[in-house]
Amino acid sequence: MFNKVDERIIDNLIGICGTNDVLIEEEELERYSQDESGRFYAHMPEVVIRAENTEEISKVLKLANENLIPVTPRGAGSGVVGGAVPVYGGILLSLEKMNQILEIDKVNLVAIAEPGVVTNDLCKKVAEEGLFYPGYPMSVETSFLGGNVATNAGGSKVIKYGNTGHHILGLEVVFPSGEVLPLGGKRRKDSSGYNLLNLMVGSEGTLGVFSKITVNLIPLPLYTVDLLVPFSTVESAIQTVPEVIRESKVLPCAVEFLDRLSVELASIYTKCRWEYQEQAEAYLLIQFDGNSKVQLEESYIRAGEACLKFGALEVFVAENPFASERLWRLRRNYLEAIKAVDPYVVTGDAVVPTSLIPRMLKRIKEIGDEYGTDILCAAHAGDGNIHSAPLRPENIPPEEWQSIQEEILDKIAVEASSLGGAPSGEHGIGYVKKKALYISKKREIPVMREVKKVFDPNGIMNPGKIF
Amino acid sequence: MFNKVDERIIDNLIGICGTNDVLIEEEELERYSQDESGRFYAHMPEVVIRAENTEEISKVLKLANENLIPVTPRGAGSGVVGGAVPVYGGILLSLEKMNQILEIDKVNLVAIAEPGVVTNDLCKKVAEEGLFYPGYPMSVETSFLGGNVATNAGGSKVIKYGNTGHHILGLEVVFPSGEVLPLGGKRRKDSSGYNLLNLMVGSEGTLGVFSKITVNLIPLPLYTVDLLVPFSTVESAIQTVPEVIRESKVLPCAVEFLDRLSVELASIYTKCRWEYQEQAEAYLLIQFDGNSKVQLEESYIRAGEACLKFGALEVFVAENPFASERLWRLRRNYLEAIKAVDPYVVTGDAVVPTSLIPRMLKRIKEIGDEYGTDILCAAHAGDGNIHSAPLRPENIPPEEWQSIQEEILDKIAVEASSLGGAPSGEHGIGYVKKKALYISKKREIPVMREVKKVFDPNGIMNPGKIF
Repeated sequence: MFNKVDERIIDNLIGICGTNDVLIEEEELERYSQDESGRFYAHMPEVVIRAENTEEISKVLKLANENLIPVTPRGAGSGVVGGAVPVYGGILLSLEKMNQILEIDKVNLVAIAEPGVVTNDLCKKVAEEGLFYPGYPMSVETSFLGGNVATNAGGSKVIKYGNTGHHILGLEVVFPSGEVLPLGGKRRKDSSGYNLLNLMVGSEGTLGVFSKITVNLIPLPLYTVDLLVPFSTVESAIQTVPEVIRESKVLPCAVEFLDRLSVELASIYTKCRWEYQEQAEAYLLIQFDGNSKVQLEESYIRAGEACLKFGALEVFVAENPFASERLWRLRRNYLEAIKAVDPYVVTGDAVVPTSLIPRMLKRIKEIGDEYGTDILCAAHAGDGNIHSAPLRPENIPPEEWQSIQEEILDKIAVEASSLGGAPSGEHGIGYVKKKALYISKKREIPVMREVKKVFDPNGIMNPGKIF
Repeated sequence: MFNKVDERIIDNLIGICGTNDVLIEEEELERYSQDESGRFYAHMPEVVIRAENTEEISKVLKLANENLIPVTPRGAGSGVVGGAVPVYGGILLSLEKMNQILEIDKVNLVAIAEPGVVTNDLCKKVAEEGLFYPGYPMSVETSFLGGNVATNAGGSKVIKYGNTGHHILGLEVVFPSGEVLPLGGKRRKDSSGYNLLNLMVGSEGTLGVFSKITVNLIPLPLYTVDLLVPFSTVESAIQTVPEVIRESKVLPCAVEFLDRLSVELASIYTKCRWEYQEQAEAYLLIQFDGNSKVQLEESYIRAGEACLKFGALEVFVAENPFASERLWRLRRNYLEAIKAVDPYVVTGDAVVPTSLIPRMLKRIKEIGDEYGTDILCAAHAGDGNIHSAPLRPENIPPEEWQSIQEEILDKIAVEASSLGGAPSGEHGIGYVKKKALYISKKREIPVMREVKKVFDPNGIMNPGKIF
């Protein structure tokens, strides 16, 4: 189906990108053979290209397209579903060198950046100007902006601000033909023909490569307050969420749920402890932001009271950045903490309508029991997105566990879909979740395939992903 | 290219929808032959169908598709670009009878409605539950929700809340094959394959028909405050906009600009007067909403001070619903007011990056001078969307003026696009703005055509629109 990368192709690639940015040594290729989905999903590329500008991307894609060689675009490699893994070999196109923030436009409230910018670098840079990029995901410190767009990443603030896609105003996209097409821009509205821009968001490198990204900025909220709320049962914690949202009168920007085991592992890993770790079976971590201290206070008091009414053990308030960081560090390191225990762990990120989180958590527990495993759960409870991680029982070797783990996560994803949810809320489908997608959206898949053909008729863009 | 609607088809349609909902009398057809773009763009349908449910839509589309008969979906007919005009005759599919609000889900904060619901009915209904549908457009009192989705309508609150598309969580779409495909739903996030949902938004009936719509709701903001700010020059008004946004620290939900002539006509039409109408060359109408009176006060005082610093003649504050309504009634009736003077007027809605509004307004003035006409301007200044309406000089008859008017608006739209904008910010392209789109997005058009083929291979869905 595809051709191999031969010497002629390598010579051409060197001609386009220069010797230094065309990697062919085994050792180098190895480094690009996996992402955070781990070694069981690794595949070796035949060659790695580090593109430095749009023109190089365009020439590389054109060459690959004409020679039927697969191209897998790669950002930080921080994805967890094998999206950046070159499952058909071919060219791995790394965007790591395209890491410039090109413009911060304070009048139009937009920033333009290259895809290889670490999202947190963008956040810090715009914060210096009193601005805020609301699309940042939980992996803000490692992931690239390009990857965020490719997966339509979410994060902890989706409930108030929406996911990455809500904040993408423009993309410069390079298609397999080599054509460079700017979609959107600094304008804030557009009802002029089909929304090709949003079609690119979340397309996981299967349609084209993003070479420039224009994002929305808003004024930086002046204040944030975090509530840490321990509960004695999972049910009481999760049933409190809609109450908190209703009672607070303003939308919290985050409502995170963590179960006991998740907190324990993260606590060991980060050497932070949360209050009540002995008694609490679950926690909510709730954040409000805004520009009025008075209003924030009103909101968090109402939210706190709602929590107590529904059986919270206590309400802890973090009103300064140090206390806040202590809480969030533990949450942010949740995945790393699990990986420290089980390096091969794969996490699901199925999403359900928020009202169905209790039911879904119950089902996850049942599925865990069925397979004789503990499934850790942490949820963006405010938006219905549940991260579940089945822990490997000690008596099962990793090689064997791999397929069982997949089966468990597929089951959870399909169950979520049957409740009006979807297999992935923010990680994307990549390579790992294809089966779950196939079952969940089986009537959409043929349409998606046709749409792909419009942009990538030869199927060279990140083949083997999504469907 | 298309077949005519013959007796056999009519019989089939009657079999599907019943005699009462299959209209064939000349007089009835006439009523569905135009929208707000006016009689110069009118086209007669061969038959009008009033669908009552998804199944009927599905059967009608299947029949039309098999017989190569064009189908033009129609909502309230309040569009201004001929989007609902059956330019190739065939079947006009009216959604007016599908006007039920099916569900208001207070836990998941969503509502599900049929496409024929008047948007304001939805807004009022959810307000009774303390909820707010932020996607409503300025034409809220007449337009249907389905039409809002089809055009990706904007409104006065885009700057804070985004346009209609930002608030559409799910669509049930009927495709020409008769297939009924639910996209999205009550879930708030989805990174599971291509975003087909958003591709439907703004597709103007050219891909399929929306039979159910799931929208996002948020808690109803408790307070709003409006500022009416007269300026002695257009330039000073418009240059104040970015200052207001920056200085207010919170995003206003609306920043509207109106020039002298627009206010005068709307004032005559509504019999309301705004303060300073003798001296002011331009106005800003600024709205803040929120849940804290204290914070609102802070914001509007900062905004008002920014206005005065930039040369505002005065700042008037409307803090109660009656005063507020008086201000907005004039703004809302702007288009009707112009139509009262010139029933054939067509308005443009080109969009530019907000920083370029002054430059664009200057160009519009120059273009007006070039053609010896006054071009009225009212802008959603906060989001860069400019409504321009060239007034017909008395010495030119309507028939002759029509093409000149089109030429002027195309010129404005293309100019806006060359500044990084687009021909339409919220009305859509329909029939009237095709030429401007063709020039502005000429590299996107072939891609859009291919995308259309995926969903509508026979090209029966609203042919002659967009491209």
